[in-house]
Amino acid sequence: MALLFLSSPERAAVWGPMFDAAGEGFVVGEEAVTDPAEITHLMCWLPPKDLRRYPKLKVVIGAGAGVDHMPRMPEGVTLVRTLAPGIDEMVRDWVVMATLMVHRDMPTYLRQAQAGQWTGHVVPRARGTRVGIMGMGRIGTLAARTLSQMEFDLVGWSRSGRPVDGCDVFGSDRLDAFLAQSEILICLLPLTDETHGILNADLFAKLPQGARLVQAGRGAQLDMDALKQALNDGRLTSAMLDVTNPEPLPETHWAWRDPRVVITPHVAANTDHAEGARHALEVVRASRENRELPGRVDQDRGY
Amino acid sequence: MALLFLSSPERAAVWGPMFDAAGEGFVVGEEAVTDPAEITHLMCWLPPKDLRRYPKLKVVIGAGAGVDHMPRMPEGVTLVRTLAPGIDEMVRDWVVMATLMVHRDMPTYLRQAQAGQWTGHVVPRARGTRVGIMGMGRIGTLAARTLSQMEFDLVGWSRSGRPVDGCDVFGSDRLDAFLAQSEILICLLPLTDETHGILNADLFAKLPQGARLVQAGRGAQLDMDALKQALNDGRLTSAMLDVTNPEPLPETHWAWRDPRVVITPHVAANTDHAEGARHALEVVRASRENRELPGRVDQDRGY
Ligand SMILES: NC(=O)c1ccc[n+]([C@@H]2O[C@H](COP(=O)([O-])OP(=O)(O)OC[C@H]3O[C@@H](n4cnc5c(N)ncnc54)[C@H](OP(=O)(O)O)[C@@H]3O)[C@@H](O)[C@H]2O)c1
Ligand SMILES: NC(=O)c1ccc[n+]([C@@H]2O[C@H](COP(=O)([O-])OP(=O)(O)OC[C@H]3O[C@@H](n4cnc5c(N)ncnc54)[C@H](OP(=O)(O)O)[C@@H]3O)[C@@H](O)[C@H]2O)c1
Repeated sequence: MALLFLSSPERAAVWGPMFDAAGEGFVVGEEAVTDPAEITHLMCWLPPKDLRRYPKLKVVIGAGAGVDHMPRMPEGVTLVRTLAPGIDEMVRDWVVMATLMVHRDMPTYLRQAQAGQWTGHVVPRARGTRVGIMGMGRIGTLAARTLSQMEFDLVGWSRSGRPVDGCDVFGSDRLDAFLAQSEILICLLPLTDETHGILNADLFAKLPQGARLVQAGRGAQLDMDALKQALNDGRLTSAMLDVTNPEPLPETHWAWRDPRVVITPHVAANTDHAEGARHALEVVRASRENRELPGRVDQDRGY
Repeated sequence: MALLFLSSPERAAVWGPMFDAAGEGFVVGEEAVTDPAEITHLMCWLPPKDLRRYPKLKVVIGAGAGVDHMPRMPEGVTLVRTLAPGIDEMVRDWVVMATLMVHRDMPTYLRQAQAGQWTGHVVPRARGTRVGIMGMGRIGTLAARTLSQMEFDLVGWSRSGRPVDGCDVFGSDRLDAFLAQSEILICLLPLTDETHGILNADLFAKLPQGARLVQAGRGAQLDMDALKQALNDGRLTSAMLDVTNPEPLPETHWAWRDPRVVITPHVAANTDHAEGARHALEVVRASRENRELPGRVDQDRGY
């Protein structure tokens, strides 16, 4: 029983000692594999083309919080995404920052600052401002907690409509009602067949006039042309994006120059190596003990 | 017993009906005063030069959250500042936003965005980042609550060192120890003789190298030249200012063009007219009933 590690040397330098200390097998790189039948777990960003080389492979751990780039696993192999409290908290921090930035008209103040212009505008209150979060999973729930502590008026949307403390959660069939309440719309959805292109002209048309967008899901969820049109129509006032379509965003893309859009280069979170290793060790133990694997992906749902 | 109102017509349009409904005397403008001996309360940004015209005047209510611009009141007249939950919450929101913006390197990402440059940097975590709040009054306490909910490592500093839940508060004699712990320094002090120019080269030198500054107090607390020097030395990495010195900041000021500095034009809060009127009515009632006046200023301390 061993984990085959296919990631960076810096990460290996943290994982190796932790696996050794835990007495778990750890092999770095396919060339180092002496007995392929020993490999039960694989950690990678993308798996090698032919997984049949490892007859006892049971689990593939994707290095990211999302698995939208992953191929379908062969029969008998479970796909797991990396879970780490650090990832969730970092994305929460970015989302709270971005929500406050669009709420408090930072795009306008940043534009004014470039011209050295000292002009104040009416200050909106969090209390009574309606914020809608698409995706009430690990991160959505965490973001809702901080934003409702600040008295924003929260609603959530998820496939199941599973209830979350202090926040009405609408199920998938109630998307329109959810959108009608979202003066600030936050996207924290995984990328799946169902969420591909979900942030489009139809959806924007269902938001209150002048709404604001915070996008921290995945780039391919957002139709960038529809975003531009919604900004020009006044349907949207501003947008803050950590993920874009395409990614990286080309230097000459209009969105970089549009003062209503603020972009960060997919930096809402990165994985702390030690936290990633702790999660992987937990996956290895759980699979030995036939427990539910933390971060297990339902490949039919796609997340 | 009546309140003489010396502020804008828009504000008067909200206050008038509320005072009428409460059965309290309300006079708009000095010209409308028929019997000066009827005036017991005065609401203004700045009082008229000669307050002796109103022999029964007991209380002056300043229209702002700070009273640093106010002259000393004559014997027997109490100065009160405007208290409103809305003000505190709006400043809290701005401070949380600004803290996250300096923490998450927004000045760098904003500069990169201007050049269409997609380059990520290491993502810091809130957990373990030490934030110091100068001024643990109404607003400082509220900001500490949200920031510690997000797992920042909080310390406070105040004159009294009065304890605040979930946060070590250092007294005035322990400023150096407090500064040594402040990787992000937030100023929420009132402007007084003691705090005038407090954010200066000496103070910056006591911060950890590479610290970040969030200034939401008053402009005259900050030595802008010292700020520039500290940024150039690397003592400070970035700064976010809602108040500046002077104010408004002239169009040609270096700080507008410095990519390490983000400026908003004194918009952390504004007073909701109805909330201001409710506070003033509470002051009128408290003075009739000889209770402690909410927002009373200690004129010797200056806040
Ligand atoms: N920008 C970044 O750097 C960054 C970093 C990390 C993560 N992310 C993104 O954030 C996403 C969420 O992460 P997480 O850990 O919170 O995921 P999670 O715990 O799996 O939660 C996903 C949420 O989305 C909902 N959902 C999925 N498909 C849906 C659909 N078709 N319609 C409605 N709701 C749907 C789920 O509904 P149920 O509750 O009913 O299952 C769940 O509430 C990731 O997938 C990734 O795309 C971005
Ligand atoms: N940017 C904006 O738009 C905006 C809006 C509203 C307010 N403000 C600023 O925020 C300030 C704070 O408001 P607040 O309502 O929180 O005031 P507050 O409740 O009176 O609190 C003031 C705090 O500062 C401390 N302090 C005063 N002088 C000090 C000194 N010399 N050394 C150390 N600590 C000192 C006080 O210590 P003790 O606890 O020991 O008394 C108290 O903790 C206002 O005065 C104003 O300057 C700015």
